Amino acid sequence: MDRRVRMGMVGGGQGAFIGAVHRIATRLDDKIELVCGAFDVDPQRSKAFGKEVFLPDNRVYGTYQEMIEAESKLPEGERMDFVSIVTPNHVHHPVAMAALSAGFHVACEKPMTVTLEQAKELEQKVKETGLLFLLTHTYTGYPLVKHAREMVRNGQLGKIRRIVVEYPQGWMASRTEDTGCQQASWRVDPSQAGGSFTMGDIGTHAANLAETISGLKITDMCSDLHSYVPGRKLDDDGSILLKFEDGATGLLWASGVAIGEENGLNIRIYGEKGGLTWRQEEPNTLVAAWLDKPKEVLRTGLVDSQIAQDKTRVPPGHPEGYLEAFANLYTNFAGAIADAKAGKSASPESHDFPSVKEGVRGMAFIQGAVESSKQQAWTKFPV
Amino acid sequence: MDRRVRMGMVGGGQGAFIGAVHRIATRLDDKIELVCGAFDVDPQRSKAFGKEVFLPDNRVYGTYQEMIEAESKLPEGERMDFVSIVTPNHVHHPVAMAALSAGFHVACEKPMTVTLEQAKELEQKVKETGLLFLLTHTYTGYPLVKHAREMVRNGQLGKIRRIVVEYPQGWMASRTEDTGCQQASWRVDPSQAGGSFTMGDIGTHAANLAETISGLKITDMCSDLHSYVPGRKLDDDGSILLKFEDGATGLLWASGVAIGEENGLNIRIYGEKGGLTWRQEEPNTLVAAWLDKPKEVLRTGLVDSQIAQDKTRVPPGHPEGYLEAFANLYTNFAGAIADAKAGKSASPESHDFPSVKEGVRGMAFIQGAVESSKQQAWTKFPV
Amino acid sequence: MDRRVRMGMVGGGQGAFIGAVHRIATRLDDKIELVCGAFDVDPQRSKAFGKEVFLPDNRVYGTYQEMIEAESKLPEGERMDFVSIVTPNHVHHPVAMAALSAGFHVACEKPMTVTLEQAKELEQKVKETGLLFLLTHTYTGYPLVKHAREMVRNGQLGKIRRIVVEYPQGWMASRTEDTGCQQASWRVDPSQAGGSFTMGDIGTHAANLAETISGLKITDMCSDLHSYVPGRKLDDDGSILLKFEDGATGLLWASGVAIGEENGLNIRIYGEKGGLTWRQEEPNTLVAAWLDKPKEVLRTGLVDSQIAQDKTRVPPGHPEGYLEAFANLYTNFAGAIADAKAGKSASPESHDFPSVKEGVRGMAFIQGAVESSKQQAWTKFPV
Amino acid sequence: MDRRVRMGMVGGGQGAFIGAVHRIATRLDDKIELVCGAFDVDPQRSKAFGKEVFLPDNRVYGTYQEMIEAESKLPEGERMDFVSIVTPNHVHHPVAMAALSAGFHVACEKPMTVTLEQAKELEQKVKETGLLFLLTHTYTGYPLVKHAREMVRNGQLGKIRRIVVEYPQGWMASRTEDTGCQQASWRVDPSQAGGSFTMGDIGTHAANLAETISGLKITDMCSDLHSYVPGRKLDDDGSILLKFEDGATGLLWASGVAIGEENGLNIRIYGEKGGLTWRQEEPNTLVAAWLDKPKEVLRTGLVDSQIAQDKTRVPPGHPEGYLEAFANLYTNFAGAIADAKAGKSASPESHDFPSVKEGVRGMAFIQGAVESSKQQAWTKFPV
Repeated sequence: MDRRVRMGMVGGGQGAFIGAVHRIATRLDDKIELVCGAFDVDPQRSKAFGKEVFLPDNRVYGTYQEMIEAESKLPEGERMDFVSIVTPNHVHHPVAMAALSAGFHVACEKPMTVTLEQAKELEQKVKETGLLFLLTHTYTGYPLVKHAREMVRNGQLGKIRRIVVEYPQGWMASRTEDTGCQQASWRVDPSQAGGSFTMGDIGTHAANLAETISGLKITDMCSDLHSYVPGRKLDDDGSILLKFEDGATGLLWASGVAIGEENGLNIRIYGEKGGLTWRQEEPNTLVAAWLDKPKEVLRTGLVDSQIAQDKTRVPPGHPEGYLEAFANLYTNFAGAIADAKAGKSASPESHDFPSVKEGVRGMAFIQGAVESSKQQAWTKFPV
Repeated sequence: MDRRVRMGMVGGGQGAFIGAVHRIATRLDDKIELVCGAFDVDPQRSKAFGKEVFLPDNRVYGTYQEMIEAESKLPEGERMDFVSIVTPNHVHHPVAMAALSAGFHVACEKPMTVTLEQAKELEQKVKETGLLFLLTHTYTGYPLVKHAREMVRNGQLGKIRRIVVEYPQGWMASRTEDTGCQQASWRVDPSQAGGSFTMGDIGTHAANLAETISGLKITDMCSDLHSYVPGRKLDDDGSILLKFEDGATGLLWASGVAIGEENGLNIRIYGEKGGLTWRQEEPNTLVAAWLDKPKEVLRTGLVDSQIAQDKTRVPPGHPEGYLEAFANLYTNFAGAIADAKAGKSASPESHDFPSVKEGVRGMAFIQGAVESSKQQAWTKFPV
Repeated sequence: MDRRVRMGMVGGGQGAFIGAVHRIATRLDDKIELVCGAFDVDPQRSKAFGKEVFLPDNRVYGTYQEMIEAESKLPEGERMDFVSIVTPNHVHHPVAMAALSAGFHVACEKPMTVTLEQAKELEQKVKETGLLFLLTHTYTGYPLVKHAREMVRNGQLGKIRRIVVEYPQGWMASRTEDTGCQQASWRVDPSQAGGSFTMGDIGTHAANLAETISGLKITDMCSDLHSYVPGRKLDDDGSILLKFEDGATGLLWASGVAIGEENGLNIRIYGEKGGLTWRQEEPNTLVAAWLDKPKEVLRTGLVDSQIAQDKTRVPPGHPEGYLEAFANLYTNFAGAIADAKAGKSASPESHDFPSVKEGVRGMAFIQGAVESSKQQAWTKFPV
Repeated sequence: MDRRVRMGMVGGGQGAFIGAVHRIATRLDDKIELVCGAFDVDPQRSKAFGKEVFLPDNRVYGTYQEMIEAESKLPEGERMDFVSIVTPNHVHHPVAMAALSAGFHVACEKPMTVTLEQAKELEQKVKETGLLFLLTHTYTGYPLVKHAREMVRNGQLGKIRRIVVEYPQGWMASRTEDTGCQQASWRVDPSQAGGSFTMGDIGTHAANLAETISGLKITDMCSDLHSYVPGRKLDDDGSILLKFEDGATGLLWASGVAIGEENGLNIRIYGEKGGLTWRQEEPNTLVAAWLDKPKEVLRTGLVDSQIAQDKTRVPPGHPEGYLEAFANLYTNFAGAIADAKAGKSASPESHDFPSVKEGVRGMAFIQGAVESSKQQAWTKFPV
């Protein structure tokens, strides 16, 4: 039986970096087929782009509303199964609401919405409809992130004490937004990016990674956001003291001005019995340290957790990277949709992807970080 | 205009690791469509597997002969453009010859053939037909390998003096071939693998990498192959002193018994003005050292050669790996085919992939390595 | 002319780790001679230990008071020039005050005193007497730390924006203090260690390193100290948000429970034009990143600042470590004393060592960290 | 009882790098006292230098002959116990012979002599006199080299199969000998350096390291030496295929033209059960890989062999380096002398240092390497 599922894409047309990444990620494991799209706010450009990705004319739409309406009328087995939203942030919410209302599953770029209220509304909608929702916190798709989470769950580290998570980048260390770099300009524009550049763009990934691996929720934060590059309206660096459930504490640092850092997400997590270190730029190595024996170097393809092995495509030493991690999210999501279509109760494994719950926490994290910094004081995590 | 090209696959059915890798690599950039296949020597299994990869029944064939004959009769625009050969080594030659004779381009796993003579015959055939041939020396597809080659070509290192290339692995350090691991058993069976395990399987990649980056050809070799695991008929470790054109010298080491090594291909190359170090397991870093200034860390996405930038899909710090390197080979090959179909003279860039010439040198390398070790003496490179 | 200077040691007898380190450090460059000592509170044990370090009986004293008195009566050229204090922390202040009062220069382990008031009193005393004072913040003795400081001073990084400094250790992750380990037990005893384990023992090194390299002073701190190991009276982990002069900000983390970390002091410092990374465990590498060119790997012995080269004893690639860094402090201190004895105004280079000013700031740092954590709020740096 | 021993030094005067290193190394652990010297062929300069190292005039000699004669007449307890020879290579042999003949123990820089015959003569002399002889193969003094040797001895790696040892340097990649660098000029002058630069200067360290850790002797070699820098009379790069006892094989590469390499001695050794990797530039890490469990990171101060722990002065994470390794050789040597003086049979541990046997093998290695390269053929190890 064909378990492939059909995707419609909103946004991601000509020149849109992240749309291309989503398309590669959905092709990788051949479980998802792009069947339609509304790629651009300009219907002409949308049509033109549809050709580039080999879609028939009648499946390329001028607007997302048009797409949802038309696809709804197509028969099962032809119409799209889910909508992938890769638009600017402020469009996530309306598209997602419309798609869910029309009965389509949704995959959505992060941050999920612009405000915490929108996020809660979306969460409510997902609950009501019973539909599936993927939030693309890519980094949790790496096999060794899954393995780290397993190690914590299995108690191998003992009770968690400390979590140090960083996401330094250096590409915004000067006025990149003035160089014609589209990626840069919207990110430091409050009207498009929300209340924080660093926390919305990357800090939220770091917070999600920390909560995902540790299984602990942030409860309190004391944040200090700064804007270093002259003339910038949003912060370009921020650090946060964290408290987690069960007495764990942590540190989070995100920066756009850390010259020399590319995409330096990394996490260190320490429990009573051991510690783990993982760096996104070398994602196939996880270092495990122990109270009473030598440090171990764990490697993709050589770890013993099934959930990590299942997400590994090639033998040890053949590096898998960001696109593969991204594909891991989508492939699980596709598996869950296929299960749903087949009327099967989904396997836990196919449901292993970040969803609307993570989206709500992400928006709360951003709001809390901005608020705490403004007050220069500890604040409660907003949800 | 649709520049996508159509692929037929021979071999690579159920359980065949490398076939799956080829299929992912061809999907990644969406320039290649799998349209038909003869996936298994058992026609029933071939048919069954065709369904798994979503092919219509009538494009799944029982034998490669049948496939070539049937596809030849289909109209341009429907029939396959090239055959991808992912069978065991000894089948490469007949399939490639048949495909070329019928006018199809060919992509072929390495080693290209079993003997040097077959390799030369194939080279002759390619010349005669004027068709395109891709030999999947995957590692030359990495952006930083291309950049290293550019640095040498541009004279940044000066005249090359020394090349140290290694390909250590540890997975064959005990009797892996007795554990039911198919990958292991054929590799140490002389009837399937030829005269050498280490040199045929991995040493040939190392030699190709050295010649590709340096632009220099091996002229002499002094080899010492050994079999360490009891009962093994082929070598599982080998080292070679090398002489190259223009007075450069080198060292090549390949091993299956280097415990702790996964897929440890690495190269160091030293010229009059500088040196380079690259390791396949961390393929996004290239270290450049200079006579009179500090060592530099070059990174995928941040180097200045166009040929490397063109093969980079995501921003710096988002690691790309083995599958992406593999896709780089196929995408260039597809570009060359599309050019050929369009009657355009191909761009040099689209022709940037290893081909039949590298295949002949690879077979010569293996033959020379075995011969020199047998004689325990220096020998000339056989071609 | 003999520029060697004479040292008397207080503390550091049998079994005292740090005393042995000071003695090695003072021997390394042969500029300092141990001439007398009061090594133990037990005069018998002091005498016995004096023999082990080859001192004549009449130069081994029962108490520091006795030593200061007796040495004062010896002629110049025979009597000690300075006192090295390697006792438990609470004894630093009385010995230093007595030595200074008697006209002897002083070298002192950190933290300089137990309270900020004592520190200020000592600073006053040093000013009054005009004598020299060395505080052994060892890590600033590394050549590449000196070079990093030069790079900042020369403006190579531009205006400093961010400083991230960490000092994680893991040796206190369980109840090490119950295992008979003397090093552990006093460190978590408030009566001997003061108000904080992590900030007094290691955090103060981290703060000193940050201020030393950046040339900027901490102005505000928001601290969160925790005690994870049950039954422990002092914190064993702490993190601090920092503000520095001139708008720079920072993060400081010190821990005794970071399993897998040995002596993991490291610093990252980012300015408008570049960034630096240095790790104490691999002290001979300094990574410099730049806005617009590749990252550089700077190495001990290969950097261009004279002040770093002068503190390098062996050629590049011959690693120098902790003891050499320690010796660098003492050798400069000895040079300053020799200058003073010769009536020369000291060269700036020989005065390149941490002194009483750093000691006052260190005590203020500890006090501020404890206070801020208690209040769970931002506080001003206490001096 | 004072177990310190007394050293006289031959060579190592003003400007002599290696003499200074020996003096630091002998001071470090305070077991050795410099009591006399003949530091320079020019007696005036020798005298002048003696002052710099605080020797009384009457213990500074014009020639080594004079020193040996005069010291012989001094009473036990005052006269030197051993002679340290830090002259150019061709002077090692006469000084060592004279010192041994007069009843003094000898410490000698490597290579031990200029010819294999001299080496054998010296070995014979040592046997006859029963005196102690230290050959300063520094790198075997590192704690983790000792630990690696223990691991092999204990069978942790199983039967050894492969040894890959490298000693690349880049400082001779251009005509360094023309820049007034004394270190460079004598090394490529056949009359002072013997038949090979790379093998005499650094290759012999690599061979010694391989034999020391593995406990296996080289039996056959196939060498290829080259001179890359124009006008140079001796090789500046060389690689060798090796066979060891018991069926192990290996590779050795030494180079002066590997730009970017500083003092890159490193070794990888693979047995039936595990593999080890050690790099001199980061000497406090030893990576151990295993057939069936994760790779381990072993660290100085945290390994379980007593022999390694005994040679560690500071806690884990406080790096010890080259000078400390050097001191480890001298301190053991001093212990053996003290034992001999006390009439005690020496402990095996105090006898843990390279000696005249290693010196003979070193000279044989150099001779074999030159011979094999000249013949371009495999040759037997000459002893």
